[in-house]
Amino acid sequence: MNKIEHIGIAVKDMDASCQLYEQLLGTACYKKELVESEGVNTAFFKTGENKIELLTATADESPIARFLEKKGEGIHHIAFDVTDIVSEMARLKAEGFTLLNERPKRGADNKLVCFVHPKGTNGVLVELCQDAG
Amino acid sequence: MNKIEHIGIAVKDMDASCQLYEQLLGTACYKKELVESEGVNTAFFKTGENKIELLTATADESPIARFLEKKGEGIHHIAFDVTDIVSEMARLKAEGFTLLNERPKRGADNKLVCFVHPKGTNGVLVELCQDAG
Repeated sequence: MNKIEHIGIAVKDMDASCQLYEQLLGTACYKKELVESEGVNTAFFKTGENKIELLTATADESPIARFLEKKGEGIHHIAFDVTDIVSEMARLKAEGFTLLNERPKRGADNKLVCFVHPKGTNGVLVELCQDAG
Repeated sequence: MNKIEHIGIAVKDMDASCQLYEQLLGTACYKKELVESEGVNTAFFKTGENKIELLTATADESPIARFLEKKGEGIHHIAFDVTDIVSEMARLKAEGFTLLNERPKRGADNKLVCFVHPKGTNGVLVELCQDAG
């Protein structure tokens, strides 16, 4: 695993939260992107070499809608940058971690991603992120 | 705000979690430190230019004990590196954010720190972190 690529934060009101995080971080949102396959709208902010990703649900069955209902607003996941997602997925599987997708899938911000089940990581949802090139 | 300095993760069993995060991150814990004033034991891992900090409570009235009781294990806070914590605290206060300490205090890993109340940041506990030099 390399640096933290981004932290995902689940919010209810994207417009209000974008304004809030612009004030908090002292930097403007640089990208908004709909990830239709996941049922989420995203907004990205740069903090040095890392990013903050705000997430809202676009459908009731979206994982973000379920998270908001169960836990309320807050930090949803940590994403780590990886150089080779396929080999990192194989390494983690061999270490006994449970992967939530068996093959890398397309994420926001031009990434190939894979999630690790939080039950094996002290309740932390971990995402692996490789530049899709 | 500069890069993400670290992500704090609240855990119940430090030894088991240290072993787990060594496997997950593929790197050894480089520092363990007791912060007596906060009632926490900490363990740090490097991930590129960022860090992961595991936190356990050393007393029942520790903020980490209360967090574990209320929310269970998981991500506790995001810490951002700042160059000048006093001016960053003044900027955030002027923007309407609520600071949890009025003056910078000593944190783990040789830092001056200040926390921002999560009620004003979509439920996210934000820490400002300046190298204490």
